[in-house]
Amino acid sequence: MTNRDSRYDILFEPVQIGPKTTKNRFYQVPHCNGMGHRYPQAMAAMRGVKAEGGWGVVCTEECSIHPSSDLSPAPLMRLWDDNDLPVHELMVEKVHAHDALAGIQLVHNGFEVANYVSRQPSLAPCNIPTEAFPHVQARAMDKADIRDYRDWHVAAAKRAKKAGYDIIYTYAAHGTMTLLFQFLLSRYNQRADEYGGSLENRVRLVREVLEDLKDAVGDSCAVAFRFAVDELLGSGGMQKSEAQDMVGLLAEIPDLWDVNVADWHNDSMPSRFGTEGGQEEYIDFVKQTTTKPVVGVGRFTSPDTMVSQIRRGVIDLIGAARPSIADPFLPNKIDRGAVDEIRECIGCNMCTSGDYLAYPMRCTQNPTMGEEWRRGWHPERISKAESDSTVLVVGGGPAGLEATLALSRRGYETTLSEAKGVLGGRVIRESSLAPLNEWRRVADHRNYMLSQAANVQTYTDSPLTAADVLDMGANHIAIATGSKWRTDFTGLQHQAPIPVSHPSSVVSPDRVLSGEKLSGEVMIYDDDHYYLASAIAEQLACDGMSVTLVTPAADIAEWTHHTLENEHIQVRLRELGVEIICKKEMVSIQQGFVTLGCIYMETPLELAADFVIPVTARDAEDQLYRDLTAMESDWADAGIQSITSIGDCFAPATIAMAVHGGHEYARHLDKSEEERAFFRRELDLGGE
Amino acid sequence: MTNRDSRYDILFEPVQIGPKTTKNRFYQVPHCNGMGHRYPQAMAAMRGVKAEGGWGVVCTEECSIHPSSDLSPAPLMRLWDDNDLPVHELMVEKVHAHDALAGIQLVHNGFEVANYVSRQPSLAPCNIPTEAFPHVQARAMDKADIRDYRDWHVAAAKRAKKAGYDIIYTYAAHGTMTLLFQFLLSRYNQRADEYGGSLENRVRLVREVLEDLKDAVGDSCAVAFRFAVDELLGSGGMQKSEAQDMVGLLAEIPDLWDVNVADWHNDSMPSRFGTEGGQEEYIDFVKQTTTKPVVGVGRFTSPDTMVSQIRRGVIDLIGAARPSIADPFLPNKIDRGAVDEIRECIGCNMCTSGDYLAYPMRCTQNPTMGEEWRRGWHPERISKAESDSTVLVVGGGPAGLEATLALSRRGYETTLSEAKGVLGGRVIRESSLAPLNEWRRVADHRNYMLSQAANVQTYTDSPLTAADVLDMGANHIAIATGSKWRTDFTGLQHQAPIPVSHPSSVVSPDRVLSGEKLSGEVMIYDDDHYYLASAIAEQLACDGMSVTLVTPAADIAEWTHHTLENEHIQVRLRELGVEIICKKEMVSIQQGFVTLGCIYMETPLELAADFVIPVTARDAEDQLYRDLTAMESDWADAGIQSITSIGDCFAPATIAMAVHGGHEYARHLDKSEEERAFFRRELDLGGE
Repeated sequence: MTNRDSRYDILFEPVQIGPKTTKNRFYQVPHCNGMGHRYPQAMAAMRGVKAEGGWGVVCTEECSIHPSSDLSPAPLMRLWDDNDLPVHELMVEKVHAHDALAGIQLVHNGFEVANYVSRQPSLAPCNIPTEAFPHVQARAMDKADIRDYRDWHVAAAKRAKKAGYDIIYTYAAHGTMTLLFQFLLSRYNQRADEYGGSLENRVRLVREVLEDLKDAVGDSCAVAFRFAVDELLGSGGMQKSEAQDMVGLLAEIPDLWDVNVADWHNDSMPSRFGTEGGQEEYIDFVKQTTTKPVVGVGRFTSPDTMVSQIRRGVIDLIGAARPSIADPFLPNKIDRGAVDEIRECIGCNMCTSGDYLAYPMRCTQNPTMGEEWRRGWHPERISKAESDSTVLVVGGGPAGLEATLALSRRGYETTLSEAKGVLGGRVIRESSLAPLNEWRRVADHRNYMLSQAANVQTYTDSPLTAADVLDMGANHIAIATGSKWRTDFTGLQHQAPIPVSHPSSVVSPDRVLSGEKLSGEVMIYDDDHYYLASAIAEQLACDGMSVTLVTPAADIAEWTHHTLENEHIQVRLRELGVEIICKKEMVSIQQGFVTLGCIYMETPLELAADFVIPVTARDAEDQLYRDLTAMESDWADAGIQSITSIGDCFAPATIAMAVHGGHEYARHLDKSEEERAFFRRELDLGGE
Repeated sequence: MTNRDSRYDILFEPVQIGPKTTKNRFYQVPHCNGMGHRYPQAMAAMRGVKAEGGWGVVCTEECSIHPSSDLSPAPLMRLWDDNDLPVHELMVEKVHAHDALAGIQLVHNGFEVANYVSRQPSLAPCNIPTEAFPHVQARAMDKADIRDYRDWHVAAAKRAKKAGYDIIYTYAAHGTMTLLFQFLLSRYNQRADEYGGSLENRVRLVREVLEDLKDAVGDSCAVAFRFAVDELLGSGGMQKSEAQDMVGLLAEIPDLWDVNVADWHNDSMPSRFGTEGGQEEYIDFVKQTTTKPVVGVGRFTSPDTMVSQIRRGVIDLIGAARPSIADPFLPNKIDRGAVDEIRECIGCNMCTSGDYLAYPMRCTQNPTMGEEWRRGWHPERISKAESDSTVLVVGGGPAGLEATLALSRRGYETTLSEAKGVLGGRVIRESSLAPLNEWRRVADHRNYMLSQAANVQTYTDSPLTAADVLDMGANHIAIATGSKWRTDFTGLQHQAPIPVSHPSSVVSPDRVLSGEKLSGEVMIYDDDHYYLASAIAEQLACDGMSVTLVTPAADIAEWTHHTLENEHIQVRLRELGVEIICKKEMVSIQQGFVTLGCIYMETPLELAADFVIPVTARDAEDQLYRDLTAMESDWADAGIQSITSIGDCFAPATIAMAVHGGHEYARHLDKSEEERAFFRRELDLGGE
């Protein structure tokens, strides 16, 4: 059923990788997901859906080769002994079922891990504190340790082969995260023996491991090497000049080069700080240095960009992690000429929080992510309507848009009514800030899909009263009217409102997001701890204002550590001259100044501010829902069977949760209470 | 085999708790442990060992009653449905096997949780940000939610009864951690209905739940209530006056009152900030208000203190979490007249890090903690020597002392040789700081036990050369010579030494720990991120010096969040006038001043300092080990079969890891490589 544009034919050419051949150039590179060995059924089903969606290669996340590299509680993969095989066999089976190749990325994490669970000493090129717990030091490996390490690698590779993998990686990327990269970096490798010093010596262990793997499994498996060619640290770290020499030394040894930049926050660059294809300038030398196929990444969602990189000889295979999460069916959509239907990654990195927080990852764009096995949700299939009920969705933000789209896919006649002139709600407001511009895609994708749906009526500029809703005659009503930011400073830190003697100094974030311009000295008070306060600070500073960012937390935007945005935010705000004040709470607001207090003891501090923007907490905009609830006795006469609040109107949360809530509403319509509550658990002796 | 002092007879009296009777007054209160449903065999074995050690009641940690209270990845207990029963049945079986009662603490965590895994909305008395992820808000419970909540509680209690528990708790303690406490606190409960407002209204939900539980399971199970009577926040939080009224309203409803103070960092007060029995002044009113038995805690390890609290009518039952972790056999040791053998908790709170980091908890004093099931280690039993080999242990720090003690228990003739005049090594040095005084117990316990051992020779003031060691004729040699702090500033932040133009400004932490006195302005540079830098800062500030604490991290002593010390340290250092500077790295040291740099961009800052103490990383004191390794060809003639480095000499780490390493050495002597590597895994579909 291919109907593809012939310009994209090149993307569907087979590529030989050592003894294996992939059917096309779509290559899901290894990526963590918060499932791994802890949620193996979820992980395998998620990988299987990607293979079904057309990815020619589907890899695991990193897989620890030995208990001395114990990343618990992060639930990555393991191949410590044969007990680990069933998880891998399950993954491989799901991938092979759709004619894709299965890859595995073997790793030892060196000084990155404190081995909390395994209680083994950590290992490193030199004696150095572990990243996880600096008081606990990794031990400089002696020759026996290096011998052991190579043996563990080979043993894990043999198990991987036994599990059926086609491509077996060793891994020196994502910065200080892997032992092999620690050996490559002169700042960490200060060994005096043949594994340290000269570039050739630092490369020695990589060479030995690659040759070990070729000997052990190279007859039937491709051996891949993932390598970060630049740490973006200038002369203080790995950079192109040195990486060129390293690639030169190893050029023909692996069957595949998978290249990127380090650390992870540079590789999986948030859209706020980098665009599609942004790694080209760093990795473009690799194909000139080796005859082996090269895979690279760059949050590719445009087939034209993909074709361009291949035709210009930058890469052979289109590597993707995030785009394959946002749309597992991206290859198939290109194949069937439905490029406009691709659900493009917005680069918010909600997905990476699953690794940091050890939970099955979510995706803002793809509400089925992580629900494939647990609730049987498929990104492209949905159960058909079980009645001819009609549905009214009030509010066209992320929850309302997704609910409408999913309802229409089920076959329900659906009306979407939005009070404002455009669809998108908070997504449109927030993406009006330059740093969040690309997040618009959440609205754009759904707007496009709805424009193609025959069973959806959409109205903008249509605020509704409860009486209007009753008059409209729909059988089911979803209220998705969103939330608004509080202006009284209540939230996590303050349970009672802050004294404000000059109310016009206080400006709601909603006013800023609606484009209102301020002038003078602005203070942003962040008790939300995610992205918004810093994005407003960035925008206002770019607009030329004097900006101070205050938070009661120990650091700004703390939750953005989980989305790989924090370090970029720290640098960006400093470059823009934003003053940062941590561990202070708001005491009171007066004309022209505010009083702050230390969160640990009473030491008041007065600071000048013309305006204060409190980013603390939100109130649901649920007046319509409450009005309708109060009229429940009138529902039957109006033909109404249910009224449900969804998204931020139900409980203010992330955009991802609003999309998920809208999707869930649509999936659950006409289902029994038992069906709605059902989810499968991965049980070990009864517990999950 | 009881041989107990009759003064302690009162501790062994039975106490009736509702329909149940405990055989004695030793009561292991609910406590988390990082095992829970994730490591159920480990958890059950650990609880079983406590029952074996004489605790009359052994409880679980908190147990979630519903997926809307999802603490993942923290592996606490769950009773969401019948699939969870086997874990609990296993726990109950192990506890009942030793004639103890089994208790379970049911909980819903309200706005504490973001429900990352379950993806359900969080619930709270009012709409408020979740603690875990403030951008995601908990939803104010409506009447239907409250009904559901009560139903979940009852359903969980019925399952708990089915699993065989004797005591079933509901839980309103440890501060904002539980939904019921959130309802009790007026600052969080701003409801306008009958569940908010007046004290009686705020208590309503607790009363309903307690009555529900009595109705549902009270015929055969005791119903307990755990309640924090003071948050130590003054009038801003729960305090005695209000708690007295609350206890008055509920006095006779539960069968047992389990009372303490909030938050957790106040309840499990680190020894650095509080002493044995420190909660008496807060909880002493409870027994005057109810006729039901009362259990309280206070890190009790002295039977005299225990008897005093009972005789004076403070409590009926000796609650303990940490003392039962450090010595599961504490009750039996009192019973058999071996009070001096009690391994007393040092209050370092290494155990609580297991909950924060989701790993099976460790204990500094008890190296078998968490190894009961996995490696079959028992705190009081150890396998007998498998040869008549003799052992020399060089170095009497925590690793050497524990190795010597465990070897002697196995029956090996052991010689312990220490270069300095006292045994204890780093434990003695670090506990010379007032804040760490109680940590001495690590050395004191082992010194006492060794003084009773017939097969141990101990020598102090006995530095040994490699030639000396060869001459001593031991068959096995353990080198436990510890580590010393670096003075070149290398560690996690700095891989290369810092330029120091005035070396005498730099003072090693070891010199401070050896009692050297400084004068002038002192800067402490912390790249270790655990307790030591802050403890030195505290000591020097108490000594009257002007102290600045600098760290490249976002906050001071970051790892101490996991040990409940951080908030206390923050307050204490500010009270002492210590200046705190975060996110700065050391650039260079000159006479009288230092240059710091921002970790994000180049903005140098000069600060006055007469002395700089770098707390960064350590080097193993392994010269003797390396000398001996170089002489391996002479070993056989000297009768030497093995030489092993252990503790900080092997890899600098925590005291807990040094003790564990010494213990492991002793357990493994004369064992095969396979036996040494063996540990059992809790497998789900192959993964752990």
